[in-house]
Amino acid sequence: MGRSVAQQLIAAHLVSGEMVAGQEIGIRVDQTLTQDATGTLVMLELEALGLDRARTEVSVQYVDHNLLQADEKNAEDHLFLRSAARRFGLWFSKPGNGVSHPTHMQRFGKPGKTMAGSDSHTCAAGSLGMLAIGVGGLEVALAIAGQPLHIRMPHIWGIRLTGELPPWCSAKDVILELLRRHGVTGGLDRIIEYHGPGLAHLSAMDRHVIANMGAELGATTTVFPADDAVRAFLHCEDRDDDFTEVTAAADAGYDVTDDIDLSTLEPLIARPSSPGNVVAVREVAGCEVSQVVIGSSANPGLRDYAIAAAMLKGRQTSDAVSFDVNPSSRQIFADLTRMGATFDLIAAGARIHQAGCMGCIGMGQAPAPGHNSLRTFPRNFPGRSGTKEDAVWLCSPETAAASALTGVITDPRDLAAKLGLAYPQLALPQKASVNTAMLVAPLPPEQASMEDLVKGPNICSLPDFPELPDRIAAPVLLKVGDNVSTDEISPAGTRALPLRSNIPKLAEFTFTHVDADYPRRAQGCKGGSGHLIVGGHNYGQGSSREHAAITPRYLGLHAVLAKSFARIHWQNLANFGVLALEFADERDYDRIDPGDTLVIDGLRDALADTRQLAVTNSRTHEQYPVRHGLSPRQVEMVLAGGQIPLLARSTKTRDNDETPALTA
Amino acid sequence: MGRSVAQQLIAAHLVSGEMVAGQEIGIRVDQTLTQDATGTLVMLELEALGLDRARTEVSVQYVDHNLLQADEKNAEDHLFLRSAARRFGLWFSKPGNGVSHPTHMQRFGKPGKTMAGSDSHTCAAGSLGMLAIGVGGLEVALAIAGQPLHIRMPHIWGIRLTGELPPWCSAKDVILELLRRHGVTGGLDRIIEYHGPGLAHLSAMDRHVIANMGAELGATTTVFPADDAVRAFLHCEDRDDDFTEVTAAADAGYDVTDDIDLSTLEPLIARPSSPGNVVAVREVAGCEVSQVVIGSSANPGLRDYAIAAAMLKGRQTSDAVSFDVNPSSRQIFADLTRMGATFDLIAAGARIHQAGCMGCIGMGQAPAPGHNSLRTFPRNFPGRSGTKEDAVWLCSPETAAASALTGVITDPRDLAAKLGLAYPQLALPQKASVNTAMLVAPLPPEQASMEDLVKGPNICSLPDFPELPDRIAAPVLLKVGDNVSTDEISPAGTRALPLRSNIPKLAEFTFTHVDADYPRRAQGCKGGSGHLIVGGHNYGQGSSREHAAITPRYLGLHAVLAKSFARIHWQNLANFGVLALEFADERDYDRIDPGDTLVIDGLRDALADTRQLAVTNSRTHEQYPVRHGLSPRQVEMVLAGGQIPLLARSTKTRDNDETPALTA
Repeated sequence: MGRSVAQQLIAAHLVSGEMVAGQEIGIRVDQTLTQDATGTLVMLELEALGLDRARTEVSVQYVDHNLLQADEKNAEDHLFLRSAARRFGLWFSKPGNGVSHPTHMQRFGKPGKTMAGSDSHTCAAGSLGMLAIGVGGLEVALAIAGQPLHIRMPHIWGIRLTGELPPWCSAKDVILELLRRHGVTGGLDRIIEYHGPGLAHLSAMDRHVIANMGAELGATTTVFPADDAVRAFLHCEDRDDDFTEVTAAADAGYDVTDDIDLSTLEPLIARPSSPGNVVAVREVAGCEVSQVVIGSSANPGLRDYAIAAAMLKGRQTSDAVSFDVNPSSRQIFADLTRMGATFDLIAAGARIHQAGCMGCIGMGQAPAPGHNSLRTFPRNFPGRSGTKEDAVWLCSPETAAASALTGVITDPRDLAAKLGLAYPQLALPQKASVNTAMLVAPLPPEQASMEDLVKGPNICSLPDFPELPDRIAAPVLLKVGDNVSTDEISPAGTRALPLRSNIPKLAEFTFTHVDADYPRRAQGCKGGSGHLIVGGHNYGQGSSREHAAITPRYLGLHAVLAKSFARIHWQNLANFGVLALEFADERDYDRIDPGDTLVIDGLRDALADTRQLAVTNSRTHEQYPVRHGLSPRQVEMVLAGGQIPLLARSTKTRDNDETPALTA
Repeated sequence: MGRSVAQQLIAAHLVSGEMVAGQEIGIRVDQTLTQDATGTLVMLELEALGLDRARTEVSVQYVDHNLLQADEKNAEDHLFLRSAARRFGLWFSKPGNGVSHPTHMQRFGKPGKTMAGSDSHTCAAGSLGMLAIGVGGLEVALAIAGQPLHIRMPHIWGIRLTGELPPWCSAKDVILELLRRHGVTGGLDRIIEYHGPGLAHLSAMDRHVIANMGAELGATTTVFPADDAVRAFLHCEDRDDDFTEVTAAADAGYDVTDDIDLSTLEPLIARPSSPGNVVAVREVAGCEVSQVVIGSSANPGLRDYAIAAAMLKGRQTSDAVSFDVNPSSRQIFADLTRMGATFDLIAAGARIHQAGCMGCIGMGQAPAPGHNSLRTFPRNFPGRSGTKEDAVWLCSPETAAASALTGVITDPRDLAAKLGLAYPQLALPQKASVNTAMLVAPLPPEQASMEDLVKGPNICSLPDFPELPDRIAAPVLLKVGDNVSTDEISPAGTRALPLRSNIPKLAEFTFTHVDADYPRRAQGCKGGSGHLIVGGHNYGQGSSREHAAITPRYLGLHAVLAKSFARIHWQNLANFGVLALEFADERDYDRIDPGDTLVIDGLRDALADTRQLAVTNSRTHEQYPVRHGLSPRQVEMVLAGGQIPLLARSTKTRDNDETPALTA
């Protein structure tokens, strides 16, 4: 049986382990991507590692999250990141150059390559036939330093596409259909690989939409073949030479399979407040809308804006709606402007914002509580918009534009009847407005080594973390349900995001959307017993931010007991020395009350010897068997208090304090 | 002797008093302008007044300040303002439609009319031959209700312009030259009137630049004649019928005079952190720059962006600079886009932001501390940018664009030599892209009266204020120097601005840029003695926000003793029942220490009988004679605890609780 695209990519980069689902493998990393919200920690980690210069083929530091600059902290971060990119030999994508994922795809993405990115939507690069995986910042730091990336070998989920999308449906409806079928945990421990004749009708940027939101299914990543669509994309970007064909063997088999006949799809929408709450637009048509936003890495392509502009050309959006447009990159904004679409959007009443993530990460654009906001974004977790009682829906640009016109949720197919609007035929430019002036190239090594890191007062070193104790006897300070996202654990938004390089301050926001008093209670136990958290399924879904592991750890978290974990957060917990334990019997979740004290004895030996542990509830004297899925490499890390103390210790055992392995 | 333009405008609208400098006069108000940061209180005041429908010719509620929407409060305010505009028969300019001043000029400004606006830059409308005065929100509320506006008759300051601006100099350099000569108090109690042959070379939008920043001289307002330049402007805006010629009599005389030969000017710049710190650009050339921002009501015209775009076309801004462009209105953004300038700006590396005030009012764009930020804005008061130790400079678009290109402060005249750049000749469109879809017309009366005000949880009623006591014996909690701005008294920025309709919360920010502990100390005395503040010259300069009177009052402020007061803030103090007292002998300022208890006895009789009072320092037993400049109308208001308690009392003395005078 021949190999799938995913298997080919892994095999070509395998440095350790066997390609057997569930086993830990090590992969050589060709490219890395960091954005500013996670990247400041990555740069501090590179400093802590003593790295001299990046060892990847391409490493890019983007600035796309913290763009509002409500106070001096954002601008300080930008200066720090610029200096770190200069120091370590990274590309630096300036504030305003655009969202990392589409920008990376346009300028650096390359078929056949691997990428580690400190952003959960890194998987979007799968659209070009790359193996691109979102991980915690520390893993990206290690990848920049030339270390392999470790993951558990996933199952390969082959999804065969047939047919062609009908008018008014687009790529967003394909991924919403998958979320409708399989929910936000459907992709756990899987790589999604698309194949079949339906691919012929999906451009590389359409595939970006689908690959990007594979993260919402919980998948390890998504891959598409590098075929003629990818060739055409790279040609448009003036990068013909970067094309390599990567396609699945004709007889490739898949661990799991599914089929979508694209011609049967209709406009879909995710209701508040989960990407998994998908229904047909027609089922909710008529609900009043007060905000519509187009943009983000989930619909970043020129066509996603151009289709909206074409629908709105010569028309006016409803006066009850704020219609917001966030260009995903300056290049796409330039192209939109060149083709007249920017003018059409302005004329139709758009508020056009700077290129970047903006409201997608809660940096502005917060809607009024309870008022419906339709967005072409990937996520609508509770409160992620910056508004506590938000009502955020996720949909395609077609549905968004139709609803902006009418002021109510509208199936775009109804516009034909209502406004005599035919499905627009777009004529997109054959060549993009390529302009790399905001993408600053790495300094030559001799110049880079002279650069100093520019650290403002808000940029703090990482706190020290002690070893894991042999016995834990600590209270459950929080018990949460299924699908708790890292947005709920460590909130984004304009107040918290600027503190991403200041763990003690950021820790004050931990879990405050769920339980405002949690940080105070945790501080109370911090010096003594520490504490535990109990969670449901898919604990830690969403964003890759390692802050969601670091800040609870800083507040004294020893272990999370959950029904299951989301992949990236599970890795981040291990990286920062927090035990992630899965109930052997899910029903034990119900037997634990908040406030119960749980005891685990003989932890250090048990972790090394077995994948199973016993937890005793000192209130009920019940015992709960729990599993850790840690590899021996990860056990060592957790015992040491995390990856950084482990590395520091191995450094100390050498003759001097330098880390020669990481200097040139 | 014939009348100047200012005298003609006042005479045509005079309803009380005599046109003698220093005397209180009442003026009929034709138009009003409110923006969102001050407007939410105005709408609450209209509600408190029981107004049925606006009685002005034109009243417009703009949304241009609170646009970031960092949390739900901004969006709630927008919904509230929209509902209030619908309820009271106002125009509503949607978020994203643009900055009030240029938008008002383009769509509503009319020669010969008067306007009251709750924004200190309302005076910008003087560019069209209007008498437009920035005042506190309560005075605008009363104007909307059909009441006259009361001001002290100012001196008329005739400034004769001759010659023509040389290449690389523009209107901003004219007003910077006046600030260089006369400083931030040079215009106190004056109306600036421009006349002379030099006017022929200044477009209406150039005059807007000059009129707008008349506020920085402390002037009551600025007027220009309505001549051919105004006719041409209104023609471009498709509003030929709104033109009326208003010019000074040939033999018009002025109370004070000055001359500027435009041909002798050179590029100027205001150093941090006052608009009055003006030097020639060449004197500071070469200083490193990390941010350049183009936009705001101080340089809002199409040419101000087009000149920058023409300079940058085909070039790249420095990679060390964040180059930010804030379109002043969607119409100007549409025109810029239509003429290709938007593309040129994007290509040169601009971060293009939504149309609005943005960083000018500290809503985002905060620079890194100590790093130079060059802005075409009107103000650079300390901390107004959102950064405590900011280094903000004010300059023309030419100087800004030149510095963005080079990365250092650059005299644009040097670009000819450095880059072979000739002064661009601009070809601006003959007709603007007029599109009023984001400017929602007032509802018809029968529909308006059915509208409910939409009040989110952050929109609170005004607190009650007690009468002025007969005896004050209270400590001086704060002693400040000259030119303290309302930005320092009641800060703007992303944290405080969203609280503009919530006085108790907003009060916690009062004076915190000057003394972080002031709110706590004031709360401590609030229930008992209350407190006093001692100030230097020009106390309360800058923004018209009445919050700078209301929040200290809420915290127990009875009186401010200062060397002199800025006009709008002085009126706001009276409106909200705070005594503004001027030292008869300035040297007494030095005799008072923070913490001293000052005593004023027999206040109620003294205020009514005389303009002079005696203040006793109970530590030194010294007596300080002080003056109040209150009219009998204002004395009554201050004694009652402010304008609102006074109106409420007069309502209660009627037979029923309604306020029939204000309902249709």
